[in-house]
Order: sequence, then C-alpha cells, then structure tokens
Amino acid sequence: MSTCSSTEGQVIRCKAAVAWGPGKPLVIEEVEVAPPQAMEVRLKILFTSLCHTDVYFWEAKGQTPVFPRIFGHEAAGIVESVGEGVTELKPGDHVLPVFTGECKECRHCKSEESNMCDLLRINTDRGVMLNDGKSRFSINGKPIYHFVGTSTFSEYTVVHVGCVAKINPEAPLDKVCVLSCGISTGLGATLNVAKPTKGSTVAIFGLGAVGLAAAEGARIAGASRIIGVDLNSNRFEEAKKFGVTEFVNPKDYNKPVQEVLAEITDGGVDRSIECTGSINAMISAFECVHDGWGVAVLVGVPNKDDAFRTHPINVLNEKTLKGTFFGNYKPRTDLPSVVEKYMNKELELEKFITHEVPFSEINKAFEYMLKGEGLRCIIHMGA
Amino acid sequence: MSTCSSTEGQVIRCKAAVAWGPGKPLVIEEVEVAPPQAMEVRLKILFTSLCHTDVYFWEAKGQTPVFPRIFGHEAAGIVESVGEGVTELKPGDHVLPVFTGECKECRHCKSEESNMCDLLRINTDRGVMLNDGKSRFSINGKPIYHFVGTSTFSEYTVVHVGCVAKINPEAPLDKVCVLSCGISTGLGATLNVAKPTKGSTVAIFGLGAVGLAAAEGARIAGASRIIGVDLNSNRFEEAKKFGVTEFVNPKDYNKPVQEVLAEITDGGVDRSIECTGSINAMISAFECVHDGWGVAVLVGVPNKDDAFRTHPINVLNEKTLKGTFFGNYKPRTDLPSVVEKYMNKELELEKFITHEVPFSEINKAFEYMLKGEGLRCIIHMGA
Repeated sequence: MSTCSSTEGQVIRCKAAVAWGPGKPLVIEEVEVAPPQAMEVRLKILFTSLCHTDVYFWEAKGQTPVFPRIFGHEAAGIVESVGEGVTELKPGDHVLPVFTGECKECRHCKSEESNMCDLLRINTDRGVMLNDGKSRFSINGKPIYHFVGTSTFSEYTVVHVGCVAKINPEAPLDKVCVLSCGISTGLGATLNVAKPTKGSTVAIFGLGAVGLAAAEGARIAGASRIIGVDLNSNRFEEAKKFGVTEFVNPKDYNKPVQEVLAEITDGGVDRSIECTGSINAMISAFECVHDGWGVAVLVGVPNKDDAFRTHPINVLNEKTLKGTFFGNYKPRTDLPSVVEKYMNKELELEKFITHEVPFSEINKAFEYMLKGEGLRCIIHMGA
Repeated sequence: MSTCSSTEGQVIRCKAAVAWGPGKPLVIEEVEVAPPQAMEVRLKILFTSLCHTDVYFWEAKGQTPVFPRIFGHEAAGIVESVGEGVTELKPGDHVLPVFTGECKECRHCKSEESNMCDLLRINTDRGVMLNDGKSRFSINGKPIYHFVGTSTFSEYTVVHVGCVAKINPEAPLDKVCVLSCGISTGLGATLNVAKPTKGSTVAIFGLGAVGLAAAEGARIAGASRIIGVDLNSNRFEEAKKFGVTEFVNPKDYNKPVQEVLAEITDGGVDRSIECTGSINAMISAFECVHDGWGVAVLVGVPNKDDAFRTHPINVLNEKTLKGTFFGNYKPRTDLPSVVEKYMNKELELEKFITHEVPFSEINKAFEYMLKGEGLRCIIHMGA
C-alpha cells in the first residue's frame, strides 16, 4: 500500500474562507497551501465547527488584529502529507487538529499534571508557522495568516505535528470534530480536574457548549445533582439533555448566587465549574463550594483587567480553586481516548450539534453564534 | 487490672495558670476541675507548650475577650478518668488533646477530604463544654472559662473525647506534645495538601515553627530545593536544620517576591506553603507557583478584613490554590501516625524545642514568644 498522495510535495490550490478584516464576513477564496515543512503535517479538513474563540478574534475587539487570516480550530480531517521528521503520522490517518500542542519534550509535556506545552501552547497573536516564521497560505503570493496553528476554515491546512491527535479511523469525523476544542474543554474540566465522585452535587456556571460539556462530564461521573446556573432561563430545558437536574438564575434572587446555592445544598456544592469567563461568576463559583472538600474549577477566559477577589478564610476553610486549559487533556496523548468514549457510547456528541451548513454558507455559522442560537454548527467542507 | 483511679468521679483540686484579663500575666491558682460528663475525658497534663494562638487570644486585640480563662492547647497527658459513653479511651492512656475535633459522624468526618468536623471544629469564642454549656473549671464556685476545648495550662483539664488522640505509650510526652498543634499544622500542610514530589522545589513563606514544620515536611517528601521566604534574614541559619536550602528576604528586592522566585526557579516553584497569615504573602505564595502544575497552600490565618486578590489568568494557567486547617489531619484518626513518624525517626522534633520552663514560670514562655525568641517552649507541669 502506497502512503504517497499525488499532491505530496506540491502546492495545493483549494478553497478557504478568508477573513479580510475585523468583523467582515468571510470570503471563500482560492488559496495556495504550501507543502508541510519539518515537523509539519498537511491535512485535508472534512468537517469544522465554529467556536466562540474564532468569533472573538475575528471581531478583534481589544485583540491584536491579524488579517487577512484563516480562522477555524475545531475540526477533523485526514493527513494528506507529512514533512521531514514526522514519524507518528502518515497520509490517510484520521486526525483532530488542536489549537494547542504537545511537543512531548518540554517540562510541561513531561509533567503528568500539565498540558501547557512550552513550545506549542496556544498563541493567538502568531499568524505564521514556527519552523520559518512564515505562513503556508497565500493568494497571488501574498500571505494569508494562520490562526492558533490550525486554520481549519480551509479545505487543506498545515499544522505542527504536535498539534495533531491521531484518532480511531472508524470514528465519524462529522461528530468527533467537536472534540478538538470546546467539548473536550468542558468535559475534561469535570473529569480531569473537578473529579466529582458518584452521588455528589455539581454546579455548572454557564450553559453554553462548554458548560453543557462540563455537565455531561458530571453526568458521566455519576453526580446525582447537577445544578445549572445561567442568566438565561431558557437554557434549562435543553440543559436537561446534558444531565442538568436543577436550575438557578442569579437574576431571580436578591442575594449572591453563592448564598442561594449554599442554601439548597446544605452548605455548598461539592464541585463547581465556571464556564462563562465572567469575573463575578468565577468568584461565585469559588465561594459556592462546600468547606472541607469543595473544589471550584475555572474554565472561562477572563478579561485582561479582571481581579479575582475573595476573603482568604474561604481558602483556609479547605476549599480548592483550580484552573484548567483545554480540560487538562494533552492533545496527542489524551484526545484519542476521548474519541473512544464517544465510540463506546459513554459520551454523547449528537446533542451538541444543533446546526449544519455547507462550507459555502460558513457565514451562517457566525450568524447563529452571534445570535446565541444553538450549540455547535458543523461546517461540511466537501459540500 | 483496675482502670479505676482514686480521683474518678471526684472534683480534683490542682494548679492552673489563669488569665484574669487581656494581656495580664497568668497567675498560678488552685482550681477545681469537675469530673468529665458524657463523652468527656479528664486528662492529667504532663507537658504543654505555647503557641501563637494562645498569645493572640490572651492579648484579645480585636478578639472577643473571654476571661477569666485557662489557655493552652498544645500538650500531652494521660487519661485520668472518662465520662459516660466514652469507650475508646480509658484511664492511663497516653494522649494528645487537640483544639479541633473529630466526632466521626458528621459529613466532614465521613469525608476523606475534610477534617473540619461540624460538631467539634475550633471555636475560639466558646469558653464552656458542649454537653451542658458550662465550664468544668472553678475557683470558689466561680467559673473559669475553657479555651478551644483544651485549656492545657492546668494540671488537669476536661476535654471532649472527640478532641483526644490516643498515642503510642512509648512516645516521650515532653517531645510529642508539640504535635498537637503547630508542628502538625505545618507538616500536614506539606505532606497532606501540597504533596511535593521527590526532587521538586518548594517555597515556604514564614520561618516560624509552623513554616519550619512545613519545611520539615518538604525535606521528608524529598524536595531538592526548599526556599525559605522571611522578612527576618536571621532566621535562615536556624532554618537550615529543617531542610531549607535557600533564602529570600523580600526586603532585599525592589520587585515582588513572586517575580524573584520565578527568576531563580525557571518560571516558578512547584509548591508553596504560606505560614504567615499576611495577605501579601498569601498572594505572593499563589503567584510564585509554576503554571501547569504549581500548588499553593495557605496555612496562616488572615485578618478579618483582608481580601485575596489575583488576576484570574493565574488560576486559568493551571495553578491550584488550596487552604488547610490543622494540616488536614483528622485528630483522632491521623495524629497517632504522626507520632509514629517521630518514633521511627522519620520526623525530628527536638529541633523545634528551644526552651523549657517549669509550670511556675509559664509567663517566661510568653516573654520568649513575644520577643520572637526560639520556636517552642515546653512547660513542665510537674516541675
């Protein structure tokens, strides 16, 4: 069996959705995708989905504007060709590209506790590849910049081998593509960091895709009470599908939500997971856990100027505050087993997928997200 | 063998050091000690030592003044008699009384993660026994109040059975008495909560007895760098005996000590333990741990109006903030094994004991502590 594709070593011309400027609708363009260099892999993307982070950097409000750029980082695809030095992957492998990486050689990769690879940790400002500081995308010789090393809104993309998880080839790529960012982030926050025990009580702050994935993790872990906290009461109905058993809208009370939670749980929840990024939710999520054993896990990304503030006695009373990044999953080492959780029906993914559009209608995915409609919109690259 | 002592069921007249008012030198008085009631134990105290907490509540600056009172909570003794319902202890047992308890029945006692017993958790305002809301100490019929349920500055005292750890009768009580508070607090903070791995780097904030016990824990755990942080550089010399390998005085730098520590440790320490109670030290202790895996443990007791404040990105970068109370040891279940650590020479206690005085000179122990001289002063009750 040949592992050589006809395009190996060649520039590939294909379609990509290019963002020409902040907030401007993406334009499907024909781009040139250079072959992968040392330790790089060129992927054919089959399915990609839209995540808030894409929208956030596309809007570029308060973020460094890097344009023209190809966004996209939640995706699944197939290896088209590999660059020099790549031995773990070969053409035809089914993979998930990931916005953060695992070099397997730095202190973080060697630590059992961390997934914050020194070499390949997310860098939202960089629009080029590490190897030569250049982009692999161009139109008429002018570079189009990368986004978080993935740029999956393109039929083909080039990614560092450390940012590619090889998965079970039987896994349906139109479903498991959502595991390459948000769903794993929420799921791992619960399963890897909060680690609720069977029968425990878990509060989830924010019932978007990440929060619902955290709830799904609590359901898998056997939590008996999963309390959703959100400013939008309409979200409770859908959240029930993800194991959420109770709902609290902070707007319905004239006292801090941590007090409300303490009252309905005899002193506090066993675990809380904060998936909004709001500083007040972070403080509430910490203060609502039970003294003695409570663990609060922060997932949502805060604003630059936020200050987390609490009375230190809350800490002294044996509460734990932890943060997590990508659910503490090491992309290459751990993601394949998350795919297996889906394959053996432990984890459900279908319920996260509320919309699907052909690549040509990618801007619709942005519209759904900006309206707060649905959870994940799968973009079919081949359609 | 009879387990009955001649004093059982009788009021005992003995000497106790009574604090008649805030900051007033203790006076050795003859007191009456009533027999133990249900679930209580009367102890003959042989050795007690002085801890900052005694001094703090004796000074009663900003604390509820409860006087006349018998202070003292770090001690070792022998059971004289037991009250109704006490089955785990009998006269003659060697014990450590503890300022916090373990009822073995509440949610905290049943949780593997907590030692903050609902029934017997430290209560510094209460001066009476739980059973009848009265004191067991009196002089001429007038009550003398208890302190944190122990009141060990008395030849005899009455304690709730849940606050008594039965220990190896071979253990020298004049040494292991220091395990009933400060030393276990620091040691457990490291061994039970921070849990440094072999070869790791640990920062200890505050090189008093608790901090040095935390350092001793790091030494036992096999940490290769133990960095002491203290505003008093003279403490480094003595700290070396406790495994401290490096010293940083924040006053010697014109930048935050967390930055200094990050520079000398390639990004941060693996574990930090805060034993001062200063809010700035708490923040530094958290911010100085390495992202990805760093764990900061707060031990020192903060002021009422303090606010712990940090940028949430520090949490998101996979740093963990934990608090501990009495080193997370459950008094009855766990203290006997700490005594065994001393018996098998894993843990050294002699170096904590810098002064010894007869009971009649107990006020000298206060003077040593107020001058910041030495670590622990053992008070010999029989001398």
